[in-house]
Amino acid sequence: MTEQIEPDLSVFFTAKSVAIVGASNQFGKVGYDVVHNLAQFGYPGEIIPINPKSKEIQGYKAYKALTDYPGEIELVFISIPSKYIINVIEEMGQLGIMHVVIISAGFRETGSKGARLEQELGEKLKHYGIRAVGPNVVGLVDTHTPLNGSFAARMPIKGNLGFISQSGALITGILDWSLAEGMGFSKFVSLGNKLDLDEVDFVRYLSQDEHTHAILAYLESITYGDKFIEISRQVSQSKPIIVIKSGSSKAGARAASSHTGSMSGADTAYDAAFEKAGVIRARSVEELFDTATAFSTMPLPRGPRLCIITNAGGPGIIATDAAEFAGLELCVLAADTIEYLQSELPAAASTINPIDVLGTGAEREYGLTLNAVLADDNVDMVLVITTPQGMSEPVKVAHKIIELHQQYPDKPIAASYMGGVDLAEGTSILKKNGIPTFAFPERGITSLLGLWKYAKIKQDMSKRLLEPEQFEANKDEVLEIFDSVINKGRVTLLGSEAIAVARAYGILAPDTRTAFSITEALRHAEAIGYPIVMKISSPDIIHKSDIGGIAINVKTEEEVRQQFTKMMNAGRQNYPQAAVMGVDIQEMSKVGRELILGVSEDPQFGHMIMIGSGGIYANYQKDVSFGITPINKIEATTMLERTRIHKILQGVRGEAPSDIERTINTLQRVSQLVTDFPEILEMDINPLFVFDENQGINAVDVKITLDRTKILKRQEEEIS
Amino acid sequence: MTEQIEPDLSVFFTAKSVAIVGASNQFGKVGYDVVHNLAQFGYPGEIIPINPKSKEIQGYKAYKALTDYPGEIELVFISIPSKYIINVIEEMGQLGIMHVVIISAGFRETGSKGARLEQELGEKLKHYGIRAVGPNVVGLVDTHTPLNGSFAARMPIKGNLGFISQSGALITGILDWSLAEGMGFSKFVSLGNKLDLDEVDFVRYLSQDEHTHAILAYLESITYGDKFIEISRQVSQSKPIIVIKSGSSKAGARAASSHTGSMSGADTAYDAAFEKAGVIRARSVEELFDTATAFSTMPLPRGPRLCIITNAGGPGIIATDAAEFAGLELCVLAADTIEYLQSELPAAASTINPIDVLGTGAEREYGLTLNAVLADDNVDMVLVITTPQGMSEPVKVAHKIIELHQQYPDKPIAASYMGGVDLAEGTSILKKNGIPTFAFPERGITSLLGLWKYAKIKQDMSKRLLEPEQFEANKDEVLEIFDSVINKGRVTLLGSEAIAVARAYGILAPDTRTAFSITEALRHAEAIGYPIVMKISSPDIIHKSDIGGIAINVKTEEEVRQQFTKMMNAGRQNYPQAAVMGVDIQEMSKVGRELILGVSEDPQFGHMIMIGSGGIYANYQKDVSFGITPINKIEATTMLERTRIHKILQGVRGEAPSDIERTINTLQRVSQLVTDFPEILEMDINPLFVFDENQGINAVDVKITLDRTKILKRQEEEIS
Repeated sequence: MTEQIEPDLSVFFTAKSVAIVGASNQFGKVGYDVVHNLAQFGYPGEIIPINPKSKEIQGYKAYKALTDYPGEIELVFISIPSKYIINVIEEMGQLGIMHVVIISAGFRETGSKGARLEQELGEKLKHYGIRAVGPNVVGLVDTHTPLNGSFAARMPIKGNLGFISQSGALITGILDWSLAEGMGFSKFVSLGNKLDLDEVDFVRYLSQDEHTHAILAYLESITYGDKFIEISRQVSQSKPIIVIKSGSSKAGARAASSHTGSMSGADTAYDAAFEKAGVIRARSVEELFDTATAFSTMPLPRGPRLCIITNAGGPGIIATDAAEFAGLELCVLAADTIEYLQSELPAAASTINPIDVLGTGAEREYGLTLNAVLADDNVDMVLVITTPQGMSEPVKVAHKIIELHQQYPDKPIAASYMGGVDLAEGTSILKKNGIPTFAFPERGITSLLGLWKYAKIKQDMSKRLLEPEQFEANKDEVLEIFDSVINKGRVTLLGSEAIAVARAYGILAPDTRTAFSITEALRHAEAIGYPIVMKISSPDIIHKSDIGGIAINVKTEEEVRQQFTKMMNAGRQNYPQAAVMGVDIQEMSKVGRELILGVSEDPQFGHMIMIGSGGIYANYQKDVSFGITPINKIEATTMLERTRIHKILQGVRGEAPSDIERTINTLQRVSQLVTDFPEILEMDINPLFVFDENQGINAVDVKITLDRTKILKRQEEEIS
Repeated sequence: MTEQIEPDLSVFFTAKSVAIVGASNQFGKVGYDVVHNLAQFGYPGEIIPINPKSKEIQGYKAYKALTDYPGEIELVFISIPSKYIINVIEEMGQLGIMHVVIISAGFRETGSKGARLEQELGEKLKHYGIRAVGPNVVGLVDTHTPLNGSFAARMPIKGNLGFISQSGALITGILDWSLAEGMGFSKFVSLGNKLDLDEVDFVRYLSQDEHTHAILAYLESITYGDKFIEISRQVSQSKPIIVIKSGSSKAGARAASSHTGSMSGADTAYDAAFEKAGVIRARSVEELFDTATAFSTMPLPRGPRLCIITNAGGPGIIATDAAEFAGLELCVLAADTIEYLQSELPAAASTINPIDVLGTGAEREYGLTLNAVLADDNVDMVLVITTPQGMSEPVKVAHKIIELHQQYPDKPIAASYMGGVDLAEGTSILKKNGIPTFAFPERGITSLLGLWKYAKIKQDMSKRLLEPEQFEANKDEVLEIFDSVINKGRVTLLGSEAIAVARAYGILAPDTRTAFSITEALRHAEAIGYPIVMKISSPDIIHKSDIGGIAINVKTEEEVRQQFTKMMNAGRQNYPQAAVMGVDIQEMSKVGRELILGVSEDPQFGHMIMIGSGGIYANYQKDVSFGITPINKIEATTMLERTRIHKILQGVRGEAPSDIERTINTLQRVSQLVTDFPEILEMDINPLFVFDENQGINAVDVKITLDRTKILKRQEEEIS
């Protein structure tokens, strides 16, 4: 329901008075827990239990109904059987209470009856403009107000991470885990069925929340993909968004008729969308929190140059490996830093990165080393590793790290305290003071990497947000072709039609005309000029060359006649069910490097665009990269650069470079085409011939399939 | 020093009497810690402190020297300055004490002086046949004897994991961490400088140790690669070996002159070697232990079919994603299992995998569900997830899991108790009772995956251990060619020579003769028969086609003349420093699919063999897979199957399949060739043309480079 105006969600977290419909004195009931949690965890506002049978709930005066309460109620929590809830919403509407958290389950998740009930509920909410969290949620928590409006058994530690979760159980699990880990949160929000408010609303809200430094989300689906991308792109310029997305989408299955569809995995669209949105994707729950934790307290690094300080070689090497694998750089220390360390550390110490202060390294050695590297301009971030050794002073070292972090607040530090008993106190001190600390060095690297990933997103986002260039295009011609195709009862364009569409958008493609008879074929060949290419024209035959449906270098009328008959027969024999429309007569192209450029529609995110190695083996080469349209030049360039064939296009083995510029331009033009025409369901250009630099490209085979429903809808709109 | 006879290392762990040279009363000294740890952690044998200045050390009678002790000493720990150690070894030799742990540092790791000292020490050890751990180690620990002969501050929990570490600090860190985690070990061994005993010795020893169920290792280098592979292949048939290998090898750098060398990353050889050895490679310390922990107590699964039981949807989906990503299968439960669960669980519960017993699921629901799936033949392993919910009974559920594991000891179970406070007791009970338990579901999956990976290794290893087939080959001819090349002062074979070598091993290749003049070129062309192929012949020009150094389809004498002159000039112009030997005249081949087949020498593991997509873009396609020679047919087949081009070779898009059989055969023949001739440093066949099924292959371009030192050595041996 994000079509509504941007809601102010602050009431959900800072309401001055909350009513609990279904409040209970009975331990074990959700309505007990919510009242208990509000009271126990220090909610400073008015707690108003609503229960028709009790006068008092957990020491608070109870009311029979919302209408009985004499004062103002800002927020309502509901925990009563689902069928009674609509009445409560009606009451709220009458009273002008505009915010509700519907904890109760018993809706869509239970089947069609529940789904109907949920729909009614939605209509009621909409009628009054009431904003709702849920139904089917654990509730929500704000540690700063504090407001624990949930049936979770615990209160999180106050902190700066905001966590949005589509799974309530994940909230209770993470909450319990975070207490042992010493990890703090600003807010927990359980999304539940997302009848009204969804991830987009809370991402937007948390972006403006002063207590939230990073936005974390566990999502199983995204309700409005386009909105999610749009809002996240804005938010990610000011706050990091880190998401774990679970549940493989089955979206890929339908699209198997196009190359683009069949080459994208179930999760490709989410990867492409998150990248476009500036969202950092975590691959596991642990990675989510390891990535997020540093944002609570640490600044962003200016660059990827890491310095490792350790008191033992092995863990230093492990950290080095992990850093290099992750794409961080092991910095080269300044000469005077090395000189200083050489003069202050024992002779056997390693004074080049990773710096090994040796097992004898104690507070003094760690302190002077950390101080020196934090002061070194070549260092962007530091990982401090400590293992339990005879001379270790883990607690003193911890205090030193904290002190130096305050002294150099502009450089992020993470720690790996390798141990669980002798290092427990030091670990606890570090965590309490905001130094991300882990038992294993690799997790420290993940943490610092999170900061660097986000720093890069911030750097790049301004360029990626530039409006895509608009090329001159003949929209009317495309419109006419599409209408004509649909009116003829087809959804797939003939080759000649698809090429006409491409050409209308300035995509270089050969003159192509469909012949429905030999006579017509000869006429077209004459007009185009020999030699020509002939291709069987059928929306149902995907791999034309496999059945001899393509003839190149056709030079004579006689050959045209022969091929026409041969192709029509081959089509009928091999695909008796196929609608063979005729034969496309095409201008002969010189041969270039074979790329594939495609578009397929993703149900969540709209058009997904693809570029990579093409030709008949495209499916086996698996050398493609994806983006979500519309894309600008920067995005198109990045997409192409990610393919292996990009290197070859640049010119290798003494060969001339290819026309990369025009290739990128073609990507942008296709993006514009499908953005202008949402009714394009799939589009493949394969092969897209790319010639030498400045020699252009040639889209010799173009395939377009339309979404009939969308076109009919547009036609209706045009009429009305 | 593994060339020696297989040592009996049991004395290191079960010695009845140990002397500590450098034993001390001074807290903070290593010599204090070792005596203290032996005594404090219950070593049942004789503790014999050696110290020239004290009569008593920590309550034990001390002796001035080993020779002063009247009884038998089985094992000696040494912690004195490095320069005095050789004398102690001499004393040991005189006394016939054959086992020593040299804890002291101050050897190779400190520079050239230390390295000389270490060499002398090694000679002394060898002289007496004394077996040594170290120098430069933390020591070793056996929890079953118990014997804590280390200066680590703690004693590990008794368990069944044996841990070998090349980093002492990693042992102290892991030990400390394991105490908090409740993870048990059978033995810790610190390898240090590996002057005598190394990873191979301890892998072999632990394979026979009844207390060790799984062998874990942290390695930074492998001393004898071939021995490591040989022993691990045997051991991995009875016990899993799980290794974290850190430190990027720089081996790849040298080999950049061959395709095979340049296409292998720094770590490729280790990956290939571990696979050949049946070693499971862990990518992080956490993965090492998550993978290993289940081996302490759990049986191997019969298959990859996993059942997930959860009380919450979200974590169940997370586990499902992780399992599918890892290659486990979400099992389909038997119909009667589903029916039973439907009758016993609430209507809203999900009775298909992952099974959701709902938030109301308590001991009863978990118990009946786990019982049913353990009894289901479709289930190979189970992950039980619990999140803290109102109705959860985590402790009772834990006991139920333990009980049912005893009832069904043949199916592995792991648990994810998502939480840190309310689930702490249940987690602790599970761990103490041998159920691998983790806060996050993904780690539970890693744990079960470890079992399945090893089960597969056991299944496959017998086939992979089959002796490679021996093909008929003309070794003498190869020998003659190599000698002649070396005698002519070259290390790189001419194209014609390399092809002759290939043909001597039955590798199909075109008739190729080197011409040193136009006259000779014409004579060769005549003999071979037109049309022919001409290629510039130079050991220094790698990419011949880039400078016009290849001409195909040369049809006339006139063309031969022209090309000869052109190529010789092009060679001299483009590579003024290159030794241009002439021009190879080659039988013209029909064109096939282009593969690359190569070999390069790895300093650790010998010959690494490679197959994949070939041609001039091989380096950019990055479609190759690697193995360590010698390989048998199974291994060759697996290698080819891993490439993307394998699919294309099978025949796609209506094309005929290619001669896969002969391709695999060629891989085996090349493996035999380089195994027979260790002096082959690098070999590239690119392109290797592969024709249609039963049509064979053609190795049209073969390049071989020799290791001069090895050949000279062989020649010397032959003379003497």
